[in-house]
Amino acid sequence: MAARAGIVVTGTEVLTGRVADRNGPWLAEQLRRAGVDVGQVIVVGDRPADLEGALRYLRGAGPDLIITTGGLGPTADDLTAEIVAAVQGRPAALDVELERHIADIVERLSAGRGWRLDPESTAAATRKQALVPAGAGVLAPVGTAPGLVVPPADGAGGPPVVVLPGPPRELQGMWSAALAHPVVAAALAGRAELRQQTLRLWGTPESELAAVLREHDSQLDGLEITTCLREGELEIVSRYQPAAEPAYAALVQAISTAFADTLFSPDGRTVDEVVADALLERGLTIATAESCTAGLLAGRLTDLAGSSAYVLGGLVTYSNAAKQDLAGVDAELIERLGAVSAEVAVAMADGARARVGADVGVGITGIAGPGGGTPDKPVGLVHLCASGLGRRVERRVVLAGSRSDVRQRTVAVAMHLVRELLGP
Amino acid sequence: MAARAGIVVTGTEVLTGRVADRNGPWLAEQLRRAGVDVGQVIVVGDRPADLEGALRYLRGAGPDLIITTGGLGPTADDLTAEIVAAVQGRPAALDVELERHIADIVERLSAGRGWRLDPESTAAATRKQALVPAGAGVLAPVGTAPGLVVPPADGAGGPPVVVLPGPPRELQGMWSAALAHPVVAAALAGRAELRQQTLRLWGTPESELAAVLREHDSQLDGLEITTCLREGELEIVSRYQPAAEPAYAALVQAISTAFADTLFSPDGRTVDEVVADALLERGLTIATAESCTAGLLAGRLTDLAGSSAYVLGGLVTYSNAAKQDLAGVDAELIERLGAVSAEVAVAMADGARARVGADVGVGITGIAGPGGGTPDKPVGLVHLCASGLGRRVERRVVLAGSRSDVRQRTVAVAMHLVRELLGP
Repeated sequence: MAARAGIVVTGTEVLTGRVADRNGPWLAEQLRRAGVDVGQVIVVGDRPADLEGALRYLRGAGPDLIITTGGLGPTADDLTAEIVAAVQGRPAALDVELERHIADIVERLSAGRGWRLDPESTAAATRKQALVPAGAGVLAPVGTAPGLVVPPADGAGGPPVVVLPGPPRELQGMWSAALAHPVVAAALAGRAELRQQTLRLWGTPESELAAVLREHDSQLDGLEITTCLREGELEIVSRYQPAAEPAYAALVQAISTAFADTLFSPDGRTVDEVVADALLERGLTIATAESCTAGLLAGRLTDLAGSSAYVLGGLVTYSNAAKQDLAGVDAELIERLGAVSAEVAVAMADGARARVGADVGVGITGIAGPGGGTPDKPVGLVHLCASGLGRRVERRVVLAGSRSDVRQRTVAVAMHLVRELLGP
Repeated sequence: MAARAGIVVTGTEVLTGRVADRNGPWLAEQLRRAGVDVGQVIVVGDRPADLEGALRYLRGAGPDLIITTGGLGPTADDLTAEIVAAVQGRPAALDVELERHIADIVERLSAGRGWRLDPESTAAATRKQALVPAGAGVLAPVGTAPGLVVPPADGAGGPPVVVLPGPPRELQGMWSAALAHPVVAAALAGRAELRQQTLRLWGTPESELAAVLREHDSQLDGLEITTCLREGELEIVSRYQPAAEPAYAALVQAISTAFADTLFSPDGRTVDEVVADALLERGLTIATAESCTAGLLAGRLTDLAGSSAYVLGGLVTYSNAAKQDLAGVDAELIERLGAVSAEVAVAMADGARARVGADVGVGITGIAGPGGGTPDKPVGLVHLCASGLGRRVERRVVLAGSRSDVRQRTVAVAMHLVRELLGP
């Protein structure tokens, strides 16, 4: 059986949704790679009783390891180290050497940024971050906060707690040291490999997939299959131990047969990677002209490192004048058919290609809302076109949801349009 | 005292980080507005024992209400209704009227999308979604899945459980009906108002803030203050009941005095809103020329509805040729100083302004990484310029973190640069 872990994410800013939690998902993926299965992620605010309650619940759930993130800063609402010390029965005390080490870091940081720090408040902050539970291991700071590996008090039983800072960069920089710590390694010893594979479909409804899965149910023993729809893609993720590899092969066979037309990623690549690979392999370049998405497609095309090999540039043509001046769209066309029309999307795609000098051009024009809709052209209506290589692929969609939903979903549709233009 | 709620988010895709949870944060904010405080958000996978464990832990934590999201779809991994029924002691049975209603919706949806559905698998999916715990209230579907309000079994005690679908649009569309349901209203009766106010600083280190908070500690009774750093902004959020309004006034006074130069939002507005308001009030327009952020700043400037009043357009000048052709940057300048230089950022800002015909131009050029760095120009080095109104504001930063971190942080710095150009 795979080892199990539970994660506690602390921070009222995460609980109240002001900041999205990046640590829980990142840790879950790292743990999976290490053969550790995450049972639950609990988000609590900066309240001692809630954090303590979450830790005690996780201990009861019987995992091999508990990880906390956040609450190690210098302000009074940062309480994690103190509470973990109490729950594990190991009172905290000042680590003088660590205090000096943190003071050095703070001094170096503030010199680099030109900050003039108040000595007294800096000293108090440093002292707070250098409190270590008795017998705990210290993970060297990446920012100013050290991490901790806190075993249960001698004879008390229960899993060790790994205490990590909240800023993702600091947490990630500390992770390999945490995993290598002898107490953590001992807790996770004997873990089995846990594989994860992903299939992605574009244009198959979830109920059709459910029918095919039911039909092949008897062949799929040992797979934990989850499906989810996101941005219009249907994602099928299977988690399994090596012995179930034949069952996974049977699943791939069943899906490939039933959904040959819509299975665009049999190997787990995202549509971003499929598009990038197709452009790279064929030595093609791409340019964009965007109205309602206003740069988000260009931004997404350049998310991947190395994208400068195929993304040349783009035009954000938010106003009608910009559509004409930057992308060369005919003013008469906009006048006659409106800026949100199939013809303008085509002209934008061709214009992007011509003005930027790329092989492939993408044009997007639509109504993201909440205002601006009419009975003929409702909010969510978007026209898209990908052109180049001697052909065009066009699409008209009406997308539901908020302004932000419409913009994001439009970018996803555009990525698939480029994928279709580039062919299989 | 405010009523309390706990939230369970289900879905292996959320637990493993493949999909970010948007429901927990959204619900937490809605509940706060309704005077309900959220104690914890628990994310579990699509495993019956983990979901049941989370529900039992929340019941033990003693909230007035439990809300679950997700797990109501047609596939076999969607188990929420069944498990909530078991935990609340109310066996589920087929609701024939609801079954017919869902069948109608599915038929209408698939006709609109041109799907040809297999009748048998559709019927099975519909039947699954029409299973209702005995005595539970049904919330009309927004997509195909109904929501549920499941009180505890008669005499069993414990909070009611509100079961909502996972897709944010469906959950949000069902929320007001859930809040108005008599069982929910009764559970939350007697709740107190909970206020939340935010202050935002740009350029103050967290330790300086901690010192000021400690200094004024005695005046701040009744405030729950949390601080967090995000994208370089220091955010101070206070939650309090109406009686603590004088304490909040004391906090605002203390912060305004200590950090007059860096407090850019005393009223909770984001930097996006501050910039939008400044442009609107003065009737100014803006255009962008982006290299390493490749459209993300234009995308962010158009996040807000109504941004077409001041965003005209932008240039994504990823290649050097695009910097010259689209933004009119002098080839000799790039040759002599490199594409990542203060002079090129200025030329791009001026070029965006001139080419798009806007009052304000922003130029961004940098090295997002992970490759492309040199000792002189490391990964994370970004030059920015905002120009217009007869002046220029320039900045050189070296940002830490991943490619994505560098790009996002750069966009934040650019927003503040525009804010500075527009002045107080």
